[in-house]
Amino acid sequence: MTDNQVIRTMRNHRSVRKYKKDQPPDEIVQAIVRAGQQAPFASQMYSLLLSRKKKAPFGAPLWFTICVDAHKMERFMKVRGWERVTNDLGLLLLGIQDAAYMAQNMVVAGESLGLFSCFLGAAPYFAERIAREFKLPPRVFPLVQLVMGYPDEDFPPRPRWPMWFTLFEDRYPEFSDEQVAEAMEVMDQGYLAQGYYKKQKARIRLEGGRKETFTYEDYSWTEHIARKWGQWDPSPKELLEQFRKRGFDLTGE
Amino acid sequence: MTDNQVIRTMRNHRSVRKYKKDQPPDEIVQAIVRAGQQAPFASQMYSLLLSRKKKAPFGAPLWFTICVDAHKMERFMKVRGWERVTNDLGLLLLGIQDAAYMAQNMVVAGESLGLFSCFLGAAPYFAERIAREFKLPPRVFPLVQLVMGYPDEDFPPRPRWPMWFTLFEDRYPEFSDEQVAEAMEVMDQGYLAQGYYKKQKARIRLEGGRKETFTYEDYSWTEHIARKWGQWDPSPKELLEQFRKRGFDLTGE
Repeated sequence: MTDNQVIRTMRNHRSVRKYKKDQPPDEIVQAIVRAGQQAPFASQMYSLLLSRKKKAPFGAPLWFTICVDAHKMERFMKVRGWERVTNDLGLLLLGIQDAAYMAQNMVVAGESLGLFSCFLGAAPYFAERIAREFKLPPRVFPLVQLVMGYPDEDFPPRPRWPMWFTLFEDRYPEFSDEQVAEAMEVMDQGYLAQGYYKKQKARIRLEGGRKETFTYEDYSWTEHIARKWGQWDPSPKELLEQFRKRGFDLTGE
Repeated sequence: MTDNQVIRTMRNHRSVRKYKKDQPPDEIVQAIVRAGQQAPFASQMYSLLLSRKKKAPFGAPLWFTICVDAHKMERFMKVRGWERVTNDLGLLLLGIQDAAYMAQNMVVAGESLGLFSCFLGAAPYFAERIAREFKLPPRVFPLVQLVMGYPDEDFPPRPRWPMWFTLFEDRYPEFSDEQVAEAMEVMDQGYLAQGYYKKQKARIRLEGGRKETFTYEDYSWTEHIARKWGQWDPSPKELLEQFRKRGFDLTGE
């Protein structure tokens, strides 16, 4: 009753970090983008940049940069005699969703055609550099990158939080420490069983003289995530500055 | 070569605003959520709230609220001896994406099983009210709502920007006014041909004494969008306050 190609494709999702060189035909690329476009939207507030000539991360043949785009919208508003009034934070909350729904359709459409992908989340930190490269007009902000191609590695889907730690009916539960530990165990044992961090050699270095007490035998997902958000980028200054340079004022100053 | 159930389901997407009363079985709901969970993520920084007892918009049997959730993450970071350091703007940029990729998988998984849906984007503006209702802990922020059920209306998929106005290889084009007008025509004629705004009676009222010059014979998508972002919510104050009340400081003050 719940088994079909859509569900199977989604359940089989993996983020791939090693690609064959083969360039997918234009017809395939267009089909993936077109499926992306049909995702629900508030204002179609996005644009999609593509590089096929540049050497992409993980050797992928397709390198997309997904942008929140208020430029096109403000161009057509001008034709209609309107100027944008809404604050940029409100616009971005919806524009990011427009872009993300489109991007996720591309991920799943790609996988249905044999092309896997990987999101690269750091684009906002080098928005200005991307803007120069692609000659972006103001009011276009690079949100995330997506590399895509035929996979040259195979492995099972990664674990996820148990459903009781994700879906809450009528009220958000008060989780006990034991429940939190149980959910952590699912993620950590799942990644350890696949040897994920060991294969990737992806351990995050401890800063500020903290002494390493983990090996690849016990370093797993929750420790990895904790080290990211426990050490990185304390101030929003750099991000706010990237937004400002691209013409977005999030704070209303 | 590009025809399969995934692509067809996506290309056939429609946001539905009229539902049958039938409550989908638990097995179906779980399959949709589970497919959502398998979407790519940075940190699984989301939670999903479900209401089945409350009267939902458009008479939908399922009413989801999709939240960015830093609470669960900070709970497990604490177990590991870490405190969150990363600024909230950076966290939210990734958390919104985690939540949105999951949500879009749910949309498409649902449609593959005969359940259609509609996003409701205003949740951030009444985040505090939702927090009280679901007893959300601090650091959980309602991003968007999604109603879902068996459709009680049928219509063709809505138009989208032409691909030359969406996908740009190597550089962002400098669009002429004529090109902008041509893209607008695709959207506006597409919606007019379906009688979309006429059927929905969804014309946005003009504020500040502007005189109405449109009828449902020429009022269409670009005019509708222009009226939204040309009139609504000039200051980010209200949104920033909703974030602040939920424990998120976007400006680093």
